[in-house]
Amino acid sequence: MQTVMNLVGGGGASTPQYLSGDKPSIDAFIDKFDVFLFDCDGVLWSGDHLLPQIPETIQMLRDKNKRLVFVTNNSTKSRADYQKKFTSMGIPGISEEEVFGSSYSAAIYISRILKLPEPKNKVFVLGESGVEMELQSENVRFCGGTDPSLRREMQPSDFQNVANGSLLDADVGIVLTGLDYHPSYLKYALAQAYLRQGARFLATNIDSSLPSAGTLFPGAGAISAPLIQASGQEPLALGKPSQAMMDAIEGKFQFDRKRACMVGDRLNTDIEFGIRGGLGGTLCVLSGVSQKEEFLEKGAKVVPSAYVDGLGDLLG
Amino acid sequence: MQTVMNLVGGGGASTPQYLSGDKPSIDAFIDKFDVFLFDCDGVLWSGDHLLPQIPETIQMLRDKNKRLVFVTNNSTKSRADYQKKFTSMGIPGISEEEVFGSSYSAAIYISRILKLPEPKNKVFVLGESGVEMELQSENVRFCGGTDPSLRREMQPSDFQNVANGSLLDADVGIVLTGLDYHPSYLKYALAQAYLRQGARFLATNIDSSLPSAGTLFPGAGAISAPLIQASGQEPLALGKPSQAMMDAIEGKFQFDRKRACMVGDRLNTDIEFGIRGGLGGTLCVLSGVSQKEEFLEKGAKVVPSAYVDGLGDLLG
Repeated sequence: MQTVMNLVGGGGASTPQYLSGDKPSIDAFIDKFDVFLFDCDGVLWSGDHLLPQIPETIQMLRDKNKRLVFVTNNSTKSRADYQKKFTSMGIPGISEEEVFGSSYSAAIYISRILKLPEPKNKVFVLGESGVEMELQSENVRFCGGTDPSLRREMQPSDFQNVANGSLLDADVGIVLTGLDYHPSYLKYALAQAYLRQGARFLATNIDSSLPSAGTLFPGAGAISAPLIQASGQEPLALGKPSQAMMDAIEGKFQFDRKRACMVGDRLNTDIEFGIRGGLGGTLCVLSGVSQKEEFLEKGAKVVPSAYVDGLGDLLG
Repeated sequence: MQTVMNLVGGGGASTPQYLSGDKPSIDAFIDKFDVFLFDCDGVLWSGDHLLPQIPETIQMLRDKNKRLVFVTNNSTKSRADYQKKFTSMGIPGISEEEVFGSSYSAAIYISRILKLPEPKNKVFVLGESGVEMELQSENVRFCGGTDPSLRREMQPSDFQNVANGSLLDADVGIVLTGLDYHPSYLKYALAQAYLRQGARFLATNIDSSLPSAGTLFPGAGAISAPLIQASGQEPLALGKPSQAMMDAIEGKFQFDRKRACMVGDRLNTDIEFGIRGGLGGTLCVLSGVSQKEEFLEKGAKVVPSAYVDGLGDLLG
């Protein structure tokens, strides 16, 4: 369990610096970092709407030779899917290698850190193709996921066959949940049975809600909740603000955390992720979920080192 | 919130009385009550297996002119469905009027206690036909439930149409969740949208697991969990051990609580239900979930007034 404490800034700042319209401070802030980790939704775009001057800001940072990593908790898309999304949103030139999603984070954790011995190292997936594609990219075996046969109605015989194990894959040693747009009773029953047999319980992320069309829909944490409730177990989450994701990002990109800055719109995921990771700085953008009142008020729990109204303000 | 306290017995007993094989004590115990409320699974049957001497025990109680009420948290079956189940299990002569399920409890609460004004009093159901049948029996309007159109895949346009309200029924003022064997993302999204608009949040019951085929499957509480997680709200539960259910039972059958006994196999639902309801006694049967060690140990939280190895032991 995490200690109850206030999380301040990164880089030791106790009052966040407001950068919008202050060119000298912007330049000084940017100069402090070699690496920028970006949340996407609420920072680069809002739903299907590109925010102002985003391509230009990204290009400015590239011109200054900054390394850019786009960090997303959306598990339904693979890095390849995400790269296409950047292009379709009007942000050209982002490579698949610059994207780091929670599905990829989970795949890396399973293949490079957990490393369960053969043969009981197969993953039962509650999630969409983004999870499957990233597991494939790390040569991790899996079942469940988008398998259409698991979307069927639960039959009376299924109760027997889950209970006697004949519907279970004996190689499953891990249950990985993410956002699944096709939940079914059968999938939950199978996942619960695997957990009861001792499978490890992982989640791509546990965001309870998914912002879309200007409102909130059930997120990965909501869709995983039946399994948490039925099993009485909590999964290890591999998306923001889990430090397992930060470790995976650092393991892949090899950078000095003190020269890295996390940019995001949510205090309790993005900014907390950067602060707990010991990054040199955190930048909150006010174009998404969190409001400045939340970190400016006395006793605020999570305080970024700086903030701007929108990411485009970094152009000065 | 409930007060943290120990719940002892009903009738003031502090050490539960063991009745099996003690004919004089059994007779004295039975004589104390006019009404017996029975849990079903784990008491009368275990899954599909009738427990020993159940029909004979029920007949013995009828011969003594006891009123019998069969109280179940299973929301998927209506009272009519349950009456058929009794017959098929080999327990004849149970009338539909003697059955009191959590779906019926919810229907009564909605129609006779909550009584929301027209027209915004329609119920959006996350559950099976048992819920629908009981709402119908109380002339409560509903949508959702077994409507096959809600089992379809979530489409991109659905996000827009949930957000702009065009997929919502303007008359819905209540969301009622129970055990749904056909969960879908669309149903959860609709239910979340109704809650955001201020709909009342009710649950037939919140049992996290469903015993079947000798093991545990996701229960109503598990299947409702995405909605609790996504909305940040807790439903009012109308099954055991909620006293809303006890009030509804008393309202229907009109009896003296001090002359009533709750019989069940689970301490934290059945026995707690009887004790909190101020019944004259509670009888724990050891043919189901709870073990006697749980209430005989020092400092036990929930202690029945008496216990038997199996209900058939009441025959003496």
